[in-house]
Formats: sequence, C-alpha cells, structure tokens
Amino acid sequence: MKEFVNLFFSFLLGFLFPLPLPLFARGVVPSDAPNGAQRLMMERGYGMFVHFGMNTFIEQEWSEGNVPALTYAPDDLDCDQWVRVARDAGFRYVLLVTKHHDGFCLWDSQYTEYDVASSGNKTDVVGAVARACKKYGLEFGIYYSLWDSHEPTYTCGDFTKYVDFMCGQLTELMTNYGEICELWLDGAWDKPAAEWNIPRLYDLVKNINPNCAVGVNGTIGTSEEDQGGFVEVLPDRMTEDNIFHMRYFPGDFRLWDPKIASRNDKKQYLYGGNSYYLPFEHTICLSKEWAWFQKRDIKYVRDLDELEELFYWTTCNGNSLVVNIAPDYHGRIREHEAQTAIALCKRLGIRRGKPLPSGGRYLQVGCPTEATSCWDSSDEFAPDKASDGGLQTRWASADLTPQLVVTLAPHTEFDKITIFEYCDVERLGDFSNRRTNRIQAYTIDRFVDGRWETIFADDTPMGDCKTIRFPYFYSAEKVRLNVRSATAPPSIYEFNVINTSL
Amino acid sequence: MKEFVNLFFSFLLGFLFPLPLPLFARGVVPSDAPNGAQRLMMERGYGMFVHFGMNTFIEQEWSEGNVPALTYAPDDLDCDQWVRVARDAGFRYVLLVTKHHDGFCLWDSQYTEYDVASSGNKTDVVGAVARACKKYGLEFGIYYSLWDSHEPTYTCGDFTKYVDFMCGQLTELMTNYGEICELWLDGAWDKPAAEWNIPRLYDLVKNINPNCAVGVNGTIGTSEEDQGGFVEVLPDRMTEDNIFHMRYFPGDFRLWDPKIASRNDKKQYLYGGNSYYLPFEHTICLSKEWAWFQKRDIKYVRDLDELEELFYWTTCNGNSLVVNIAPDYHGRIREHEAQTAIALCKRLGIRRGKPLPSGGRYLQVGCPTEATSCWDSSDEFAPDKASDGGLQTRWASADLTPQLVVTLAPHTEFDKITIFEYCDVERLGDFSNRRTNRIQAYTIDRFVDGRWETIFADDTPMGDCKTIRFPYFYSAEKVRLNVRSATAPPSIYEFNVINTSL
Repeated sequence: MKEFVNLFFSFLLGFLFPLPLPLFARGVVPSDAPNGAQRLMMERGYGMFVHFGMNTFIEQEWSEGNVPALTYAPDDLDCDQWVRVARDAGFRYVLLVTKHHDGFCLWDSQYTEYDVASSGNKTDVVGAVARACKKYGLEFGIYYSLWDSHEPTYTCGDFTKYVDFMCGQLTELMTNYGEICELWLDGAWDKPAAEWNIPRLYDLVKNINPNCAVGVNGTIGTSEEDQGGFVEVLPDRMTEDNIFHMRYFPGDFRLWDPKIASRNDKKQYLYGGNSYYLPFEHTICLSKEWAWFQKRDIKYVRDLDELEELFYWTTCNGNSLVVNIAPDYHGRIREHEAQTAIALCKRLGIRRGKPLPSGGRYLQVGCPTEATSCWDSSDEFAPDKASDGGLQTRWASADLTPQLVVTLAPHTEFDKITIFEYCDVERLGDFSNRRTNRIQAYTIDRFVDGRWETIFADDTPMGDCKTIRFPYFYSAEKVRLNVRSATAPPSIYEFNVINTSL
Repeated sequence: MKEFVNLFFSFLLGFLFPLPLPLFARGVVPSDAPNGAQRLMMERGYGMFVHFGMNTFIEQEWSEGNVPALTYAPDDLDCDQWVRVARDAGFRYVLLVTKHHDGFCLWDSQYTEYDVASSGNKTDVVGAVARACKKYGLEFGIYYSLWDSHEPTYTCGDFTKYVDFMCGQLTELMTNYGEICELWLDGAWDKPAAEWNIPRLYDLVKNINPNCAVGVNGTIGTSEEDQGGFVEVLPDRMTEDNIFHMRYFPGDFRLWDPKIASRNDKKQYLYGGNSYYLPFEHTICLSKEWAWFQKRDIKYVRDLDELEELFYWTTCNGNSLVVNIAPDYHGRIREHEAQTAIALCKRLGIRRGKPLPSGGRYLQVGCPTEATSCWDSSDEFAPDKASDGGLQTRWASADLTPQLVVTLAPHTEFDKITIFEYCDVERLGDFSNRRTNRIQAYTIDRFVDGRWETIFADDTPMGDCKTIRFPYFYSAEKVRLNVRSATAPPSIYEFNVINTSL
C-alpha cells in the first residue's frame, strides 16, 4: 500500500512539473522497501558486464585518453555473438561499458570526436549491442564513466560545462537505444561528490527511462572516508550504526566494486537524516585475475565451483551480480570464456522467466564459533568472523594446524560445505597474479552423539573456493574444520554449512 | 548355441564323473566368448573389495604370520554396516579378504588355530558378511591367499600337504556361506605355478559353486617372466602376438593387480596351444595411497573425478572393477570413505538391475597423434602412446612446453576431455605418498576451419585425473593439449577425447 502511495505521489509530481523535474520527483523517497526500478532490477539479478574499448587494444586496464582513436580497430567485431553468449549463459541483461575513464565512446557522440566514428572500426557498438539484446530478449544496461581523461571541459575550470557535456552524452545514450534498464556511473572518486551534480543526471535519466536503475560506484561512505580517511569494513551495515551514509544521492542501488555484501545485508542507508532502501549490485570478473579488459594472451577463468558459490552469495537476498566477460581485440568473446559462462548456467539450472536458483540455507550464519588459535586478541580476526555471513571479514589463526568449531542450532541438517580461504597473491606480471592456498591438508568433522567423526578429508591445496557436496544430509551438534597442514597460519573468510533443500 | 553345447557337455561330464572331475570338466574350453560364470561376472561388473584382518591392527600392509591372534580385536565390529555401505554405493558384490598372506582366517577354520576363534573378537566375519550380502541383495565373493606365512604345512617339505590344507579351507568357505560368486586367489608368485595345483582347487570350487568365477593374481605372463625376467607391458595383448600365455590354468578371469587393461582388450590368451577367453578384474584403492588395510590415521581418498574416470575405464568392454574400502580397527568403514563411495554412485547414476553406466565413446583411440617434443627416439614414449587406449603406456616430452596433437576422424564431436598425467610420487612416510603434477598451466585447443581455437585454459596443477566437461558438443579436425608451464617434462598416459552421448 505504501508503495502504491509512493507511486501515486511520483505520478502526481510528474504531472505537475513536466520538465525539469524537482529533486526526488521519480520516487526516491525514504523507504524500507524497493521502488519500481529497484524491484525490476532485483528480478533481473544476473547480468553480463562487457568491458570493451580503447584499453582492449593497448594491453592496459586504464589509459589516459591520449591514445589515438584509430588504435581502436577490432577486425572481427561481432556484438551479436556477445549477446548470444549472454543469452546462452542465462544472463538477464548486458551491461556495456560505453565510455571508460579514457573518454573513448563506443557510439558516435556528437559531443566528442574521441569515439568509434573516428576509429579503426566505425560500428556503433552501443547500437549493435542494444539491437542484439532486443533480438535475444535481454535487457540492456549502460556503464558510463563520470571521470573522463580526454574531454577538455573536464579540466577547463568550469566543471558545470563538463556536467553539460555528460548530460548531452547521457541524453544520446538514453534516447537512441531503446529502453535502458540500468545506468552504472563510475569514477566519481576523482572529484568531490557534489561536483558531479548527480541529482541533475538522475532526473535526466528518469525522465527518459523511468525504470532505469541508477547507481554510482562507491555509493556508500563514512564521514571519515569523505574527509580522506580509510574505513576497511564493507558498507553494508545498517542505519542503526549511524556510521554509513549515501555519498551520491539520489540513486537506486549501491555499487562498491569489487566488494561483496553480507548475507544479511538490509540495504538501509541515511541521507539528510532519512533512511533509503538500496540494493547492491556485485561485480566480479570471469577471469581469475583482476582484469576487466581482455589482453592479447588468454586469461584463465575462475573455477566453476568458485563461480557457483559466488553466484549464490551475490544474488541472494535481493542483491544482484554482473560478471565481466570481455571481448578480445578481434571483437569477439573468446570461446573458452563463453563456454565457462554457459557451463555455469547449466550447472546452476538458470531458466528464463524463473527466479534465479538459490544456494539453500546457510546454517553457520551467526552461530557460536570457537577456534583453537587466533591471530591476535583483537576482535578483527576472531573465530566468529568465519561465520558472520560476510566475505569481507575473516578469522585468522596464529598457528599452522588450528581447528575452527561452529556450534549449529539444534536439529540442523546440512549436505554441503563451502570454504572461502584467505589466499596469498603472487604477482606474475603486469596483468597476472595467482592466488595460493595456505591450507594443504584438512578434515571436516561433525560432532554427534558425544564424539567427533570425520566426514571429509583432503590433502590437496584448498582451492579458491572449496566446495564439498555430500550425497546425503548430516545432522550434527557442531561442525569442525580441522587443519592438518598449512604453509602459513590459515585464515577463513567464511565457513559455509549449507542445507541445499531449504 | 555354442554356449549351450558347452553347458550340455559340462553337465554330461559332471554326470559321468561325479568326483573328482577331470580337468576342463566345468566348461573351461577354448573359446572366444564368455562362459556362464564369466557372463555373470561381467554383468556384476562392480564390487567392493574389503581388506580387513590382522594387518588392520598393526599398521602394516603385510605381516609374517607371527603376530598373536589376540592382536586382532575390533571393538565395534559391524559387518552389516560394510555391506550397507556397499549397497548404498551401488556395488553389486562384496569381495572379502578371508585370509591374507599372514594366514590369519576371518572364520573359525577347523584346519588352523590362527583365526578369529582364537582372537580378541570371535565373530565369524565371513559368515556375518555373507548374511549381510543376502540381506541387502548383493553377491558375495572370496579372496583367499595361496601364500600362507603361518601355516606349518606350507614349509614342511611336502607341498601337497599344504594343497590339502587349502582344499580343506576352500571347502569350508565354499560350503558354509551360501553361494560364492567369485574366488580371488593371491600370492601365487611365492612358488612355481605348478605347485599350487590350480586344477584341483578349480575343480573343487566348481563342484560346489559352478557359477563361481575363479582367478589367480598374475594370471598372464610371458616365458621370459616365468624364467625370472621382467616384462613391463600390460598383458592384455592378443594371442596373435604369441607372447603372453595363461600362467595359472584353469581360470575364469585375469588378475594383474593393480594394472589397468586397455580399452580394446580382447581377452584372448593361450594355454597348451589353445586360446581361451578371459575377462579382467581391476583392483583399485579408494584411498589415494597404495594402502589396502586401514591405518590408525585417516586415509585421504581419491578425487571423485578420478574415481569416475577410472570406473569408466575399468568397467568398459566387459571387464570389471573392485574398489577396496577397508574397515578401520574398530571394525567399521570410516564415514568419509563411505560417503565418497556413495557420492560416486550418485554421480555415476548406478541403478540396481540396470547395466552399469558407460563413459561414452573415446574418440582418440588409435587416432594419428603428433607432438612437438618426445623424450627419445625410441617407440616407448611416442606421441601415439597418449592415444592408444591404454593407461600402461605414455607419451613423454623432452621439454617443458610441448604440444600434443590428435587428429580426429572426420565428423567427430566431443563434449568431454579427461587427461591422465604421469605424476611424480613423493614419499611422505611408511604408508603415505603424494602424487605431484608436472603440468602447471595449459590450454585445450581445437582446430576447425583452418585455425586453432582455445576452448579451455587452466593454470592450476592438472590433478590426478583432469576432467573437463563441456556444456555443448565441439566438432574439430584436431584437438591439442598445449602445455604452457610445467615443473618437469610432461608425460601423458592417455588424452581422452570423449563423446558422452555415444
């Protein structure tokens, strides 16, 4: 009922003030439930993120806007293939990087010459992807970098000129490519929040695409951070903390690439003393490395077990996930990456028009947790950090063979355990690294009828995300990770004890 | 029709010569097709091997027959649990070690005091397992060691007395425990073949249990071997080679623990100038290590991917597999081992009364195969050893980043690749070792439409058996393993390119 009142209020305001709309005109009101755009976004839930542009051709992740436009020259561009892969992989939308920090535009923008029209391949990529999305029945979202290293008005001294420039480009993007389901704004860290005039951008978008969900990377912050401080904890805590607030207002969802919200994320944040509902969109790379743009050499992809578990974590509780799959310098998604995304879809059993599959109930969340060893006496690496439902916090041991014991609620049954271990990262080159596990051998034990019983034992390095699927359900009073060998003191982000039938 | 004639002939002989039966009385005639006992054995196909006995209590694999009988003392013996696990894990029979080389008998034998009746737990284990098999609908097979370190007649100078002893014990085993589906005779290497009087043992068994399949470990040999030589190659080659012959005659199946027959094993071997049909029974441990008896410390089990692929290899083509799952010193199968066997069954989809699942068609077998590097100029490690359908032979490279290229037959499609890599073995202790992979990073590529395309890429060590399941079928003129990084020159037993739908 409240939502209906909000909707009616929005409609009334839209009728009274056709253009320009006053702030909050499009339903951004204090709330503890999703608005229309948010509800649609939460239903989509799973999108393919596509980074493609100047950086694809220069072996870099970020460039400075001074690479000649002709350097961009895909010789086998096939945007239809990108979206076909997205469809086959069960994604519900494609989120295209239309302009990265370098300012190079993937469409022919009348506001700049630094775009595909001046490049080695004049295809309007935004248009081609939008058409393919329509053809294959996917929704279409747009990533647009606020920060622009190329555009002269960005540094001309009068920043309102650059805001005008952005409004011109966003009008092109919102007007010429059909319905846009999402706008992902990036790079805001380069200026104080107020300079971007987010209210103006937001209203512009909502006037054209009322259902477009708008978010700005780094949405949530603390006063300490705003003053140049540093806060380590993921900002998915509630207004009751009175610590976190919306840094960019208004907006429909949170972004804090590449963090992962906790399982009990309640999505409530303060702005101007009021509390707003904001779902979270997660961003991960299909690649094992933190590499958004494709390089000449092939990239290794994450293991399906890890992708599956990250899917469950990031799409639960009304939050959503975009997985970056970057086309190569020819202009096509590489086969081994397409194949992995499609295999994941088949494994998950994603179906069109059906709710996304759930990972089951995570029984460890909030359960009493002890360990035989802890890194220090502070709360930071305490045992219960491995069962707090969050991947940003972790338990850390002080020795090499610790035990972690979770006491489950009575009458609990589980049939799956997954473990996110903290890994050491080895740098292998400019765009290359490798995670290495500390835990080399371990057992999983259950405590039942007064004794411990080993139900799983392994002596191979734990892997990026260890997944153990049991062929039947176990009951247990307690479950234990018993480390038998490690190369350094083990640390666990989360020890997930799961009932997949719930 | 021929089989019917054989059967009739056997019946007639049995009628004419009730006891003792002449040699070949029970249908062991030259043949190129299975006899009755063989056909039943091939239908069973998948059994649980149970090593339990004196060695379970002394942290050894073999003992000398001088450990006091009272040392054997399980305090929670539950043979019903063993067979329940076997049933839940999809095994069709249980093969029980009733007496190992140490001579200790798991039943109360009137021919020795070195048995359970004199031990710390007087349960007749043979009887308990036989009853549980009947209860759970499984068949029951018996392992019996010919070699006996304890029995005085074994070394009394007149070996016929020991043969009498064996005949007494085998009569107990064949008479008192219902139908016995299989007799597995071990340790024959300790004496010249003729001394065992296999014809007498064979006829004894067949007179009581005509359908009992009888086999002696090391069934097949070469003249060179019989004279103390050493032949490396698995004896699954055909009579046309005129190299291999039956060393122990008569018998219904071959044993050569722990070797694995090739996929095109034709089961034909010479004895006395005639050719006999002999299926192969494979033996593997669930444990990663070569450990048949359980030790105090938990044993790590093989990965499910490796077990699955070994299942397909060893049960194809009419051969069979027994998997050793050893109860611990309490007298129960450990939960993590039971769970693994049951998980394998669920993954394979084994169903009662249905044929065992097949792994599909292995397309690489016999295909032209090349490599960029080879260990030496001899044939021993040639590239085609990785596509000859045999796990006893392997291709070996001379450098760290070789490519192996298999040219497939035209119009071939595959959806799975599995790779058995030769591993270095690291000794970790008396009963402990670890296989370590040489290949650290690699791609799988297909050649189609005149170019190579990467369809899989991985930078984690290959694992004991790498299994890659593709979500759809690939066509290809050639398939390539492209090693990008290795710790030593890679070597591949078999590079399996599989169509799972065939």
